[in-house]
Amino acid sequence: MSDNLVISIDAMGGDNSPRVVIEGLAIAAKKNPDVRFLLFGDEGKVLPILNAYPNLKKVCEMRHATEVVRNEDKPSQVIRNRNTSMYMAIDAVRKGEAKAVVSAGNTGALMAISKLTLKTIQRIHRPAIVSIMPHQCGKYVMLDLGANTECDAVNLAEFALMGNIVAKHALGIEKPRVALLNIGAEEMKGKEEIHQAAKIIRNSQLDINFIGYIEPHEIPNGKADVIISDGFTGNIALKSIEGTARLVLRLLKNSVKKSLLAKLGLPFMLGVALSLKKTMDPRLYNGAMFVGLNGLSVKSHGGTDALGYSVAVDNALKLVRQNFVNTIRDELENVDLDLLSQEILYDSY
Amino acid sequence: MSDNLVISIDAMGGDNSPRVVIEGLAIAAKKNPDVRFLLFGDEGKVLPILNAYPNLKKVCEMRHATEVVRNEDKPSQVIRNRNTSMYMAIDAVRKGEAKAVVSAGNTGALMAISKLTLKTIQRIHRPAIVSIMPHQCGKYVMLDLGANTECDAVNLAEFALMGNIVAKHALGIEKPRVALLNIGAEEMKGKEEIHQAAKIIRNSQLDINFIGYIEPHEIPNGKADVIISDGFTGNIALKSIEGTARLVLRLLKNSVKKSLLAKLGLPFMLGVALSLKKTMDPRLYNGAMFVGLNGLSVKSHGGTDALGYSVAVDNALKLVRQNFVNTIRDELENVDLDLLSQEILYDSY
Repeated sequence: MSDNLVISIDAMGGDNSPRVVIEGLAIAAKKNPDVRFLLFGDEGKVLPILNAYPNLKKVCEMRHATEVVRNEDKPSQVIRNRNTSMYMAIDAVRKGEAKAVVSAGNTGALMAISKLTLKTIQRIHRPAIVSIMPHQCGKYVMLDLGANTECDAVNLAEFALMGNIVAKHALGIEKPRVALLNIGAEEMKGKEEIHQAAKIIRNSQLDINFIGYIEPHEIPNGKADVIISDGFTGNIALKSIEGTARLVLRLLKNSVKKSLLAKLGLPFMLGVALSLKKTMDPRLYNGAMFVGLNGLSVKSHGGTDALGYSVAVDNALKLVRQNFVNTIRDELENVDLDLLSQEILYDSY
Repeated sequence: MSDNLVISIDAMGGDNSPRVVIEGLAIAAKKNPDVRFLLFGDEGKVLPILNAYPNLKKVCEMRHATEVVRNEDKPSQVIRNRNTSMYMAIDAVRKGEAKAVVSAGNTGALMAISKLTLKTIQRIHRPAIVSIMPHQCGKYVMLDLGANTECDAVNLAEFALMGNIVAKHALGIEKPRVALLNIGAEEMKGKEEIHQAAKIIRNSQLDINFIGYIEPHEIPNGKADVIISDGFTGNIALKSIEGTARLVLRLLKNSVKKSLLAKLGLPFMLGVALSLKKTMDPRLYNGAMFVGLNGLSVKSHGGTDALGYSVAVDNALKLVRQNFVNTIRDELENVDLDLLSQEILYDSY
C-alpha cells in the first residue's frame, strides 16, 4: 500500500456498521479503481461481510481493533484509548499510512481524537466541521456544523477565514461572500460573540468579502457563499433544513396519494419528482470534513446508508486529489492570524 | 368602546406599515363583526389609508402617537419612551382599555415594553415568544422563538411549564409530550444549560410529560407536542424551517416550468399544489404571542402582508375569547415554582 490514494476507514463507526461501511466502500471502490482502503475494526465482524465483496477485498487491508467508540461515549473518556477502531484509523493518517480517514462514528470523539492526533494548523485555535450544501442557484460552504458547541469571537473569525479558503478552492469562487449566521440583520441582534466576530473580521483587514449577518431563511436564496456559526447553531440549522425538506416531500407524496386526479397526472411528473428528490437527497451531500487540522478527517452521517457512505468516501478522495490540507495550510501561512486575536482585545476591553 | 373585544393596534409596526396593518384589519374586521380596534400611530399617515375602508373605520378609534419604534432601535433606547405607537398600544392593555395588543414592529422592543408595562406573571422570570406550528400529523407548540437570546436552565424549565399549559389548552392535548431542542439524543450532547434544564424538569416532580431531547429534523415527525429552546436557537430553527419550505416549493415550481411533460400534467396536480401551498403558507401561522405576561401581546411577522396580519389579529382574538392569560395564570398558581429554582442550586453546586 505505497499508493498515494490510501483511505483509512473506521469500519465500526455509524448506526449500521460495519455492514453499511463495507457496502459503501464496495460502491466507492468500483467508482475509484485506483484507491486502497485500510480497514480498522473487529475482524470477526468485518471479514464475514467483506468476504461477500471479493473485488473490494482485493483493495482492502484489514487491521484488527479490539475496541469501539460508542455514540454515548464522552470524548474525554475515549480520547486516549489507542485500541479503538476510530483512534487507529485516525492515527494511520498521522503516520502517513493513509491520506484521509472516514468515520461515521461519534462526532465529538472523532473531533477530539483528530485534534489530538493530527493537531490543528499552527495558530488556528479550533477545527470546525464544514460541509458544502445546495442553495437555489448553486452551492455554499457552511461551518461549524457541530464540532464546537460554544465558540468565542476569535473562533468565529477563524472559521470565516477557513471557510473563505474552502469556498475559493472547492467552489471556485474568486471572492466568496462571507456571512455570519444570526437572527436579524440589525447590528444589535443576536449574541455578543457574533457582534464581536463581525467587528474582528471587518477590522482585521484580511482579504475577506464580509457581507454581514445572514438569517437562516435567506440561506436558500444564495445570498452568501460562506456561512459561519458556532457548532451548536450550525447543527440546529442544518438539521432543521434536512427535516423540513423531508417533510415537504412527504406532504407532497401524501396529497398525491389521496387525490385520484393527481394520480392520473403522476406519469407527467415523474421526471420532476425524480430530479427534485435527487436535488434534495441528503445522502448526496454526505461527508463533512474537519477543517483546520494537519490531516484530512471526514465525518459521515451516522445513520446514512451504503450510497451515502460511498459519497463521504468520494468526498474524502476528491479532497485528497486536490491536496486540500496543504492548500489551506499554505493559504493560512500568508495570513497574519494575530490580526484576529489582537482586535478582540482592542474591542472588548 | 366598553365592549369586551377591543384590540389595541400598533399601526406603525412592520415593514409596510401602516398600509399592511390597515388592510389586514379590514380583513379581520369583516370576519369578526363584534371587534373594535384602538389604533395607535401617526394620524397623518394612518387616516388617509383608513378612509378607504369605511366599514373598518366605523369600528376603529384613532389615537395619535408622535413617535415610532424603528427596527434598528435598541430595546433599552425606546423602553421608557411613552410617545411611541408601540408603547401606547401596549399601555392600553395595561389600562384595561383593550384586551390584547398586536404589533408587527421591533420584537426586542415589543418584548421589553410588554414586560415593563404588563409585568411577568408572579415568579416567572422571563416571558417567551410562543407559536403553534404544523407537523406532519398535527400541530406543536414551540418556545422561545426569539424573546431571550440567552437563557439559563431555570428559564428553560419555566418555558417547559408554560408550553405545557399552552399545548393543553390551545391544542387540547391532555398530556403534552414536552422536549428540549438539542443537537443529539445522548445525555452529554449540546449545552450545559440544556442538560441542567432536563435535570430540573425531571427532578421537579411537576406534572410534565417530559420526553427528553429532540433534534430539529425530528420536529416534523410529530415526536413532541411542546418544543423548548432559548430564543436564539428557536429563532434559528424557525427561520431555517421557513426558508427550506419555500426553497423546496420554488425548486418544484422551477422544474415543472422546465419540463414540457410536467406542464402537461399540471392540471392534474393543481389541487395538490394548492393544498400543499396552503399547508406550508407561513402567513397562516402568523401571530406569535408572549407567554408569561399579565396581558396579551401578539407579535406579527414584520414582513407579512395583509392576509398574514389579519391572521395575527385572529389569533389575538382567539386567545382573548379563550381567556388565555387568566388560564395560564391560574394554572401557574397551582404549581410550586420554587421547585424549579431550588433544584438548579442542588444540581450545579
